[in-house]
Amino acid sequence: MPPTFAFDQPGVRIRLDELPTDPPKGTSRKEAEARLAELGEELFELQDLLWGARLHSLLVVLQGRDTAGKDGVIKTVAGYLNPRGVHVVSFGPPTQEELEHDFLWRVHRHTPRKGEVAIWNRSHYEDVLVVRVHGLTPASIWRERYGHICDFEELLAEHDTIVRKFFLHISHREQQARLLERERDPRKAWKLSVGDWREREHWDAYTEAYEEAISRCATPRAPWIVVPADAKWYRNLVVAEALVEALRPYRPVWEAHLDALGHKARAELAAYRAAARTS
Amino acid sequence: MPPTFAFDQPGVRIRLDELPTDPPKGTSRKEAEARLAELGEELFELQDLLWGARLHSLLVVLQGRDTAGKDGVIKTVAGYLNPRGVHVVSFGPPTQEELEHDFLWRVHRHTPRKGEVAIWNRSHYEDVLVVRVHGLTPASIWRERYGHICDFEELLAEHDTIVRKFFLHISHREQQARLLERERDPRKAWKLSVGDWREREHWDAYTEAYEEAISRCATPRAPWIVVPADAKWYRNLVVAEALVEALRPYRPVWEAHLDALGHKARAELAAYRAAARTS
Repeated sequence: MPPTFAFDQPGVRIRLDELPTDPPKGTSRKEAEARLAELGEELFELQDLLWGARLHSLLVVLQGRDTAGKDGVIKTVAGYLNPRGVHVVSFGPPTQEELEHDFLWRVHRHTPRKGEVAIWNRSHYEDVLVVRVHGLTPASIWRERYGHICDFEELLAEHDTIVRKFFLHISHREQQARLLERERDPRKAWKLSVGDWREREHWDAYTEAYEEAISRCATPRAPWIVVPADAKWYRNLVVAEALVEALRPYRPVWEAHLDALGHKARAELAAYRAAARTS
Repeated sequence: MPPTFAFDQPGVRIRLDELPTDPPKGTSRKEAEARLAELGEELFELQDLLWGARLHSLLVVLQGRDTAGKDGVIKTVAGYLNPRGVHVVSFGPPTQEELEHDFLWRVHRHTPRKGEVAIWNRSHYEDVLVVRVHGLTPASIWRERYGHICDFEELLAEHDTIVRKFFLHISHREQQARLLERERDPRKAWKLSVGDWREREHWDAYTEAYEEAISRCATPRAPWIVVPADAKWYRNLVVAEALVEALRPYRPVWEAHLDALGHKARAELAAYRAAARTS
């Protein structure tokens, strides 16, 4: 099991440059991939129980700098899930209608219903990240948002939503390598964006914004996990492991509930058949 | 390539009992599965181009009797896609709010945006199926709906939505076997429903309703495909094949568009770098 960098206590100051972007020394890629396949199967099973029992839902928040691998995590980890019960939502720049509401309005309508998994590619955290870095609202506004975020996530948790937030942590060097790689491959050139290079000029401001967001909004029921993301295979393993660990404790609850539902369904069917025989 | 039972001309009367529920004689399961894996890769590639180019969207409508395999198709075929760009929507009994709107209101809000794939597990067709069989609205109402459905799907097609509608065709015998199988497996007992057995009593009424829906709403731009669905492996192959065939003609268009986007992005990046050097 990989060491994890999970933060679940608000106010504990974190420093991203003290947290690794690389896999721990000696981690075997081959073993990690074998383990990921196992976790994928367990995740699929757990999701089936979540779906059937409809007692809880799962919200996965993915944040990270450009090229950090949000799309890659979705492809790999969500690929293990039954698409029937998964909603992937990407939050881009807000529309005019969204801007005319409070900042939680647009994400609230995409929270998962019971039985479902929602995966958010970016989220309400952008309102204390890009908004802060580029001064899109006055500081007096975005400073109030940490409290609102914690309250909102607590509301979800009280409604039996299991919340896990991932920061995909890549190094400055690795981001450069990935941006240049896109440029070399003519089939990927359409994914190039000057915006990505421009945002890179604000690296330190984003670091600061992420540190504060993670520190202030890490809570027991909605923890942040800082994922070493320079190696894609390790990043996927850490996310899958954290999700399996989040769901696994509920397995007996869901199984017992499904047993009860099964007994009820059998009894109803028996009654239906008895009625059909005597009619 | 399997023979297909695609209907794209309105008004041509079809009879479901003349259409196979079994794979054609001599079809090799092993070959079918190998072919499905190839199609899955092609589907993934095509979806990536669809997503990048954002010139079109894809709407997949899945209809069929209970146990016909709608969920199975979603799991298998959607499993080949990048979850980022897929929305699976299940339409159950309408809510009060939905009933207080016209019958297309609730589906319209789930049509795919450019670049996306929407997969509908049941759809607006329920309003000429279950509604007709159980007399939930007067015949004068549901009879008008075929025309509205054709108009609606034409609207989507004009907005560059590629529409494919699948009827998963299982036999009366195979449905019984599947319902009984659910009953035998204690881990699946919670999926049992008296409702499924009750609906089975209306088998012929549903046959008639499906025949009319398929006949009246088969159009060149929104064809119906009647899928032999007694064998799951064959059913998945037919759906995957039909989707690949629907998307494949667009490949050169999407590739050319992405090339142009790539050139534009490179030029912008070059200008950005030149400006950075001289500043």
